Amino acid sequence: MKILVINGPNINLLGRREPGIYGSQTLESINASLSESALTLPAELDFVQSNSEGGLVDAIQSALGSFDGIIINPAAYTHTSVAIRDAISAVAIPTVEVHLSNVYSREEFRHKSLIAPVAIGQIAGFGAFGYELALKGLVEFLRKR
Amino acid sequence: MKILVINGPNINLLGRREPGIYGSQTLESINASLSESALTLPAELDFVQSNSEGGLVDAIQSALGSFDGIIINPAAYTHTSVAIRDAISAVAIPTVEVHLSNVYSREEFRHKSLIAPVAIGQIAGFGAFGYELALKGLVEFLRKR
Amino acid sequence: MKILVINGPNINLLGRREPGIYGSQTLESINASLSESALTLPAELDFVQSNSEGGLVDAIQSALGSFDGIIINPAAYTHTSVAIRDAISAVAIPTVEVHLSNVYSREEFRHKSLIAPVAIGQIAGFGAFGYELALKGLVEFLRKR
Amino acid sequence: MKILVINGPNINLLGRREPGIYGSQTLESINASLSESALTLPAELDFVQSNSEGGLVDAIQSALGSFDGIIINPAAYTHTSVAIRDAISAVAIPTVEVHLSNVYSREEFRHKSLIAPVAIGQIAGFGAFGYELALKGLVEFLRKR
Amino acid sequence: MKILVINGPNINLLGRREPGIYGSQTLESINASLSESALTLPAELDFVQSNSEGGLVDAIQSALGSFDGIIINPAAYTHTSVAIRDAISAVAIPTVEVHLSNVYSREEFRHKSLIAPVAIGQIAGFGAFGYELALKGLVEFLRKR
Amino acid sequence: MKILVINGPNINLLGRREPGIYGSQTLESINASLSESALTLPAELDFVQSNSEGGLVDAIQSALGSFDGIIINPAAYTHTSVAIRDAISAVAIPTVEVHLSNVYSREEFRHKSLIAPVAIGQIAGFGAFGYELALKGLVEFLRKR
Amino acid sequence: MKILVINGPNINLLGRREPGIYGSQTLESINASLSESALTLPAELDFVQSNSEGGLVDAIQSALGSFDGIIINPAAYTHTSVAIRDAISAVAIPTVEVHLSNVYSREEFRHKSLIAPVAIGQIAGFGAFGYELALKGLVEFLRKR
Amino acid sequence: MKILVINGPNINLLGRREPGIYGSQTLESINASLSESALTLPAELDFVQSNSEGGLVDAIQSALGSFDGIIINPAAYTHTSVAIRDAISAVAIPTVEVHLSNVYSREEFRHKSLIAPVAIGQIAGFGAFGYELALKGLVEFLRKR
Amino acid sequence: MKILVINGPNINLLGRREPGIYGSQTLESINASLSESALTLPAELDFVQSNSEGGLVDAIQSALGSFDGIIINPAAYTHTSVAIRDAISAVAIPTVEVHLSNVYSREEFRHKSLIAPVAIGQIAGFGAFGYELALKGLVEFLRKR
Amino acid sequence: MKILVINGPNINLLGRREPGIYGSQTLESINASLSESALTLPAELDFVQSNSEGGLVDAIQSALGSFDGIIINPAAYTHTSVAIRDAISAVAIPTVEVHLSNVYSREEFRHKSLIAPVAIGQIAGFGAFGYELALKGLVEFLRKR
Amino acid sequence: MKILVINGPNINLLGRREPGIYGSQTLESINASLSESALTLPAELDFVQSNSEGGLVDAIQSALGSFDGIIINPAAYTHTSVAIRDAISAVAIPTVEVHLSNVYSREEFRHKSLIAPVAIGQIAGFGAFGYELALKGLVEFLRKR
Amino acid sequence: MKILVINGPNINLLGRREPGIYGSQTLESINASLSESALTLPAELDFVQSNSEGGLVDAIQSALGSFDGIIINPAAYTHTSVAIRDAISAVAIPTVEVHLSNVYSREEFRHKSLIAPVAIGQIAGFGAFGYELALKGLVEFLRKR
Repeated sequence: MKILVINGPNINLLGRREPGIYGSQTLESINASLSESALTLPAELDFVQSNSEGGLVDAIQSALGSFDGIIINPAAYTHTSVAIRDAISAVAIPTVEVHLSNVYSREEFRHKSLIAPVAIGQIAGFGAFGYELALKGLVEFLRKR
Repeated sequence: MKILVINGPNINLLGRREPGIYGSQTLESINASLSESALTLPAELDFVQSNSEGGLVDAIQSALGSFDGIIINPAAYTHTSVAIRDAISAVAIPTVEVHLSNVYSREEFRHKSLIAPVAIGQIAGFGAFGYELALKGLVEFLRKR
Repeated sequence: MKILVINGPNINLLGRREPGIYGSQTLESINASLSESALTLPAELDFVQSNSEGGLVDAIQSALGSFDGIIINPAAYTHTSVAIRDAISAVAIPTVEVHLSNVYSREEFRHKSLIAPVAIGQIAGFGAFGYELALKGLVEFLRKR
Repeated sequence: MKILVINGPNINLLGRREPGIYGSQTLESINASLSESALTLPAELDFVQSNSEGGLVDAIQSALGSFDGIIINPAAYTHTSVAIRDAISAVAIPTVEVHLSNVYSREEFRHKSLIAPVAIGQIAGFGAFGYELALKGLVEFLRKR
Repeated sequence: MKILVINGPNINLLGRREPGIYGSQTLESINASLSESALTLPAELDFVQSNSEGGLVDAIQSALGSFDGIIINPAAYTHTSVAIRDAISAVAIPTVEVHLSNVYSREEFRHKSLIAPVAIGQIAGFGAFGYELALKGLVEFLRKR
Repeated sequence: MKILVINGPNINLLGRREPGIYGSQTLESINASLSESALTLPAELDFVQSNSEGGLVDAIQSALGSFDGIIINPAAYTHTSVAIRDAISAVAIPTVEVHLSNVYSREEFRHKSLIAPVAIGQIAGFGAFGYELALKGLVEFLRKR
Repeated sequence: MKILVINGPNINLLGRREPGIYGSQTLESINASLSESALTLPAELDFVQSNSEGGLVDAIQSALGSFDGIIINPAAYTHTSVAIRDAISAVAIPTVEVHLSNVYSREEFRHKSLIAPVAIGQIAGFGAFGYELALKGLVEFLRKR
Repeated sequence: MKILVINGPNINLLGRREPGIYGSQTLESINASLSESALTLPAELDFVQSNSEGGLVDAIQSALGSFDGIIINPAAYTHTSVAIRDAISAVAIPTVEVHLSNVYSREEFRHKSLIAPVAIGQIAGFGAFGYELALKGLVEFLRKR
Repeated sequence: MKILVINGPNINLLGRREPGIYGSQTLESINASLSESALTLPAELDFVQSNSEGGLVDAIQSALGSFDGIIINPAAYTHTSVAIRDAISAVAIPTVEVHLSNVYSREEFRHKSLIAPVAIGQIAGFGAFGYELALKGLVEFLRKR
Repeated sequence: MKILVINGPNINLLGRREPGIYGSQTLESINASLSESALTLPAELDFVQSNSEGGLVDAIQSALGSFDGIIINPAAYTHTSVAIRDAISAVAIPTVEVHLSNVYSREEFRHKSLIAPVAIGQIAGFGAFGYELALKGLVEFLRKR
Repeated sequence: MKILVINGPNINLLGRREPGIYGSQTLESINASLSESALTLPAELDFVQSNSEGGLVDAIQSALGSFDGIIINPAAYTHTSVAIRDAISAVAIPTVEVHLSNVYSREEFRHKSLIAPVAIGQIAGFGAFGYELALKGLVEFLRKR
Repeated sequence: MKILVINGPNINLLGRREPGIYGSQTLESINASLSESALTLPAELDFVQSNSEGGLVDAIQSALGSFDGIIINPAAYTHTSVAIRDAISAVAIPTVEVHLSNVYSREEFRHKSLIAPVAIGQIAGFGAFGYELALKGLVEFLRKR
């Protein structure tokens, strides 16, 4: 079982800025422990991060034929990107949407996700642990299919 | 660690109707396996289901002083109940919101949650397995606090 | 043919207040003459009235396996209850929605029915006689099925 | 008791197209059986169908002084015609609005009726049988007046 | 100076219904006294009334090359007709919009005129006398041009 | 018959700026010819202009007991002043609303008049001649009362 | 003079949670001092609290024939309950609406009250003292009637 | 304890117009009895009335350093004045908002108060007696501070 | 292959007014050259123009059983006619929507087409040449079917 | 080069209240240092402050013929005054809009400026230094003209 | 005549996914046959595809001075990209907008094109054949210029 | 003091297209004179321009630890980019937003800035000179901090 973990804009700053809000873990360490968790399922993970909408579309397309599932934190593009939504629809690979913070307790424009309707599920508000939950949920989904 | 699992209107019909959409597990069997999972964390679970908004408010209030966390699937009241939101705020017990289906791929009026802003996190679209994820997420949250 | 007639909040006051608007018949007498009309079709009626949204959800659920059709006047909950809508969807029993007054000539918020999309049909504005029409329409629908 | 039955645009195609949705009865046969039902009330019916908004306004105006009631299925004009609404208001003849399908489970723009506020009542979703219900409801209304 | 006076749907009922609101003058008598007033300006009037949107478009088009100005009371089509607006734009004949009643103290949907932006001016609320004012205003406009 | 003519903000600049749009007549000369026209009706006019919303409210209140009618061009306050609307309602003196330009062919926010619902009628788009029409319309209204 | 004091969802937690916001008085002690104040007017008070919308409708209906006035703090149901509004309309007993906090300085959805249009008056922001003001205002209203 | 009582536009007409709606008391007599009530608290009152938004801003600013509290009936400016809101915020003197009528049962645009979010509380619908309630509420607030 | 070309309101004025915007070709000459182009495909064309919404519905219905495809320029009715939309749905003949001008660079209300969702495709902004493109597109579609 | 600096409501309180937000400089000292800066450009400044909308309109009109440019901080009237906008349009003197605070990080209703479309430019968020920037920007604009 | 054909995000997947919806032709083969069609006009084509909004802006800018026209299928960016719109405006090269599917029969957010107002025309719903139509329409436009 | 000057999409075309609107200066010459102005403050400037949203996010992130302030003209992304907003928030470097034109006198969708709430200030409408003002404002801000 191969799963691609995709992170969107500004997630590469994790652990370097505003640890009070986003925690002190860097994206690298999050990815590392996620890989470790994956071993026991077992699943194999690959990681991409991009600040560019087009870069995220490229990443999703690149999963075609190589990956069984996608975990994506589209960050700011959650609320504005039809292109990422269309990419997920087009590759038709089961995708779980993750958000570090509880987007529903933030600005109004963060309450709307263009990605959610094409994802199999959504996990928000659990910080870095959300990726662990997403991984478990996705693997469960892929097994049951 | 004591956790109250609260289910809202029509969830008591699970497994009896529309198994194609909601699965063939009854609420009783979901609760039973959830209790089993809880043993290993360890956590102790209690369960309430009500079709009444006021009944759910009562349930949340009853957790005051007895429970460390709440897992709630407010079902239809997710989109209409300020009373349940206020109850969660008032008791100030960490609460995770769960939805069986991907509410974001259903009718427009199901995209708005009045509960989400007062929950610590939200899990949607994973069917009955969502409760397992919620339990893991909530316990992780309570441990880190 | 067994049909459950469900009335929502404040309908129990019929005939006791504002006869100019709602007529002088009490709910009891409406139900009695409706039962009489049913004899000739023939159909057997049962009646529930509740001021509580949860109570109405309970009533709808109780029809599962015992009734062939539902006639419901959700009154004030018409415009606010996703829970009642979900209950009707879940039990999948043919349901006719009735309103005593012409809700479309009243306040703007009464023009929107959350129930209508899951009902087979809607009858509004005919006063107590609307229940007779609903009964005829529902029986016709059940016969043709 | 004389009643004018008015049908709006595309209703003349009934029975010729999409029988799965609208049934296989033609408008002519619906009118014929409606006339038969009217005999027993007793009421006398007259029929008009027009694809033109102005034609429907003309029809409504023509009822002035000759008819005691109107049954109208304004079809597509339900949602756009202030002119038909004004005609009904102007002639002040009791009018019942009928829809073959459950307009509330179709596109959003079909949920709004400009006619409903000036009608005495509304019947939707019962197919051709809706005209029978409308006739019964209208006659009852005229008798009680 | 030749002016075409166009009246829209239901204006032909003037004087026959609801004299309390619209006065007891018929359209014929309004037209007659308007013609008389026109003599002194001097101006020559012609009159059309139609309940049909297309009929009103035809009337406006017929003014091309024969009339110097148009007075129009589009009645219900004021709020819904892009076709009449386009006809006025296309013939490019100075047009005054008249309303018998104060449309701004009626239903919300009557506050919006699709015609007003292409008219030279608008007169509302003066009853039948509004046509006299429109005539004076239009003649003044044509003289000054 | 005494009539108060009230002009709102920036109308005092008439004739001094943008003659292409608003004409080259000053407010003084408009008022002078209006007074002359009034002689023949006969009516007596008084004039107020103010750039202040409160000043216009004062002017309207001052008409109580002294004037039979009001002609008002509220200019910019048309679209924003509840206070002027309330003043017109409170003094209950028949009031005609005038606009020099066709407000409906300008910015969206100029299409809404807070004053119109409490005026007897509205005249827009005829430039300075609009005051003449308003005077005729108001006098006709006062005579018929 | 008999007055029913009705409190909605979560008001029963007063004094037990968030004293910084809602004060340290319990509902019982508020009711006790309110009863004492009533003695001097004189008025007799009765008290109901319910977390259920239907329970509040029942309470309002129970006042029919037994109470001269109602003081209600509908709490969360203020913003969502058509049923409570309809109950107040139906019993036609003068009702004053009270809110402990200044609802207008909280979330947008708390700015809209469905109850206010059917209440005689509204008092918000004065904490527990608001009930005293409501009592005085209601008694004054009942006396003047 | 010194309190400034500020009344907005058209309140100076109280008792002179529409006594059926606003009562027959003049503003002067309301102020006089309010002063009398104040004696017993004890509190000293001063009064301002202005039809001008700027005049009301001046009045609020004048309270700086001289008054302990403000009672304001902003009347029509309630719904449109950011300037008055900013003045109340700037002087930071506890302010109670009063409305004579139940603004929530009037036109939609009167349901929104720009003032409410910066006031400590709001009282509406009690007629002239509302000032008495406001005075009591404000004094209670100032005492508890 | 028989194709019906339907033109809506004011298109009959083409070439007679505003040649700067709509070109100097009359509708007759456009139709003539379109017929010529059709010969080479080969396809046979028939033409209807009407200023009336009902007339356009009639035209579409008349195509039932006689035509393989429809090219329609609904002009002003594009934005307002549910009746034309329903007619196209009902006859279920492949239909291409054409607009002479780029409707998206004109007034906001012209950006919304009620016809587009039931057409197979839409062509806008190419002037009279748009009919040529529509013909080619429609024929290609019919061939591939 | 003569420039009029106009300040709107509550700006006269600068330095006297909320120095944390608005700084400790009074309007007088801001004006004084602005005059000093002007000397070096060179430009001559005049200053007006008013809490009244009408007063600000008067000030803008007074600039006609005497001033080459206007710097205006319309404060609260930014969001509500069509009258000030019309005055700026009418006098057609180049005008720069200044805001002390970053209005875009405050309440939603402060994000909309009615003045901005008629100003040459807008400066927000730089506190008192914003006037210096406005002066430099305006002088640069006037020089380049 | 040189024309640049630009395709946006996910169009590179054509023929590889969802052939039922988008056809089985790859973008390469579409481009190849389009080039062939161009030979006969004659026109010379160049092709760009990018998943990145910035990449598409770069492509449009690169056309400056080298191309006479642009055919663009902005795909998902149609509905969200002001940057692409601004690029088309800035280079001022005649541009035709193409969509493979009928965007108007898909989700609401796909009905709005930010690109359409700056394109000369729009073609939607004809699948790959739409590029042929766009090419013909663009060449016709360029010839007539 | 090191400041990064970031320009968004299409700004690289400055001076090459539409000099009537945007002036004839190229971005290079603007940057050159800005650098010169910076010498006297003194401040050191660096410059980035990108047509890509992700490229702008990268640029902002690159300022972390190296720059004291940012001047950004996000151009088209102003109105659509949550990613750029989040980047500015994340790096927490004081940022000034500049627009060449007066965005408030252009299309409605340009009136909303997603960037403004996280910038310290905004300057719009002064053309290339706006960068000079932004530089002065930013340096003043950094000094005062």
